[in-house]
Amino acid sequence: MNQPVVILVRPQIGENIGMSARAAYNGGLTHLRLVNPKEPWPNPKAIKPAAGAHVILDEVQAFDRLEDAVADLHYVLATSARPRDMAKPVYNAESAIKKLNEMIQQGHQVGIMFGPERTGLDNEDLSRADGLIEIPMNPDYSSLNLAQAVLVMSYEWIKHINKRPEVSLEHHDTLATKQEIIELFDHLEHELDRSGFLRVPHKRDTMVRNIRNMLLRGEFTSQEVRTLRGIIVSLVDPYYRDRKIPEG
Amino acid sequence: MNQPVVILVRPQIGENIGMSARAAYNGGLTHLRLVNPKEPWPNPKAIKPAAGAHVILDEVQAFDRLEDAVADLHYVLATSARPRDMAKPVYNAESAIKKLNEMIQQGHQVGIMFGPERTGLDNEDLSRADGLIEIPMNPDYSSLNLAQAVLVMSYEWIKHINKRPEVSLEHHDTLATKQEIIELFDHLEHELDRSGFLRVPHKRDTMVRNIRNMLLRGEFTSQEVRTLRGIIVSLVDPYYRDRKIPEG
Repeated sequence: MNQPVVILVRPQIGENIGMSARAAYNGGLTHLRLVNPKEPWPNPKAIKPAAGAHVILDEVQAFDRLEDAVADLHYVLATSARPRDMAKPVYNAESAIKKLNEMIQQGHQVGIMFGPERTGLDNEDLSRADGLIEIPMNPDYSSLNLAQAVLVMSYEWIKHINKRPEVSLEHHDTLATKQEIIELFDHLEHELDRSGFLRVPHKRDTMVRNIRNMLLRGEFTSQEVRTLRGIIVSLVDPYYRDRKIPEG
Repeated sequence: MNQPVVILVRPQIGENIGMSARAAYNGGLTHLRLVNPKEPWPNPKAIKPAAGAHVILDEVQAFDRLEDAVADLHYVLATSARPRDMAKPVYNAESAIKKLNEMIQQGHQVGIMFGPERTGLDNEDLSRADGLIEIPMNPDYSSLNLAQAVLVMSYEWIKHINKRPEVSLEHHDTLATKQEIIELFDHLEHELDRSGFLRVPHKRDTMVRNIRNMLLRGEFTSQEVRTLRGIIVSLVDPYYRDRKIPEG
């Protein structure tokens, strides 16, 4: 396993197991273990909420005891709403995933423990963990449910292993060449000269510069430049275009 | 408003509005707007799934048209499962929140648009947005539901505005002083000398060093040092302790 195992400890409600499976799989986590679920496993109630995450549900491993569920793992972190009186390192969700992935890179098997709905993991459960994960949430309203907690961790996982650029510009066309931009500016400035928009000589340079800057910020594609030129053509009234514009 | 407005466009199911309110509030987002919900608003079906996020539900604003829902905002990003053929900047969830917070710092009102269940935002909706947000998820199984998408964004929001340390050690007691650690080592090494564990002279220094290093990694508190010393005392068999250990 080159990813953390998701361990649901004493889940009370079958639907939540399904929703957690979905949340895990949304972030690419496919190994789900149950410890002493309240309802017998396999549980048909889990199927619909899993919303097609069958890969996960079919492979779920159920254990009677937490000790057995973590026996083959080397490093386990436990989610905990607020850290208990326990001297363990406390990670946030992001740094926990970073730590877990470091352990994986060193050849270790790792897991993330999630507690029962409402009560969360008890101190006995937490004493099995190498560290705690405190998911940062609204201090005035911290009611993250089981599947939401799994989602935050799986989201941080896929974000960590699958770095995306911070910002990309979704162009299905290449950016316009500078030649195309120059021709656009020439075209526009020619028409603005003709229309009289740029007729005050001592203001002309500044105005042209401002227009060019404004348009360059758009980072236009070739197609967009063609569209803009079409707009200019269509805006120039043929009647007006043929009139003589007074100089200066 | 010093936080992004959450805008649910044409939500189909009342329960999902409640779950989205809960997800928003989990990350501290309290402004929720609806555009043309399928079921009339207010909708009693939203109350239970909101799980106590009344602050949000009571203040929800409903609009017939997206244009009206965003009219007072300066900058709006739209979540979109996969970027459409649209030349807009595409952010990931984290960089989107960073961008939105920059806009807020400059005095702007900002929002995040979420599309209807199943279909997502259409191209007309997206054309209202200044940029897109692509939430990074499992490419093999991207079935993030409405409330899950809201949760990821609200989680990134509270993470961004409420920076936590990457790792902290949850001690409700201060770390042991070096004097306490030295006394622990003296105690332990004294007993190990007596027991004969350290009896091979040319190995003694290395063994002592290894034991000290191993124990120091634990970053013990004062209380833990006292516990360890109690363990040492209790392990030393009184009978054995009084025996004469042969030298070297």
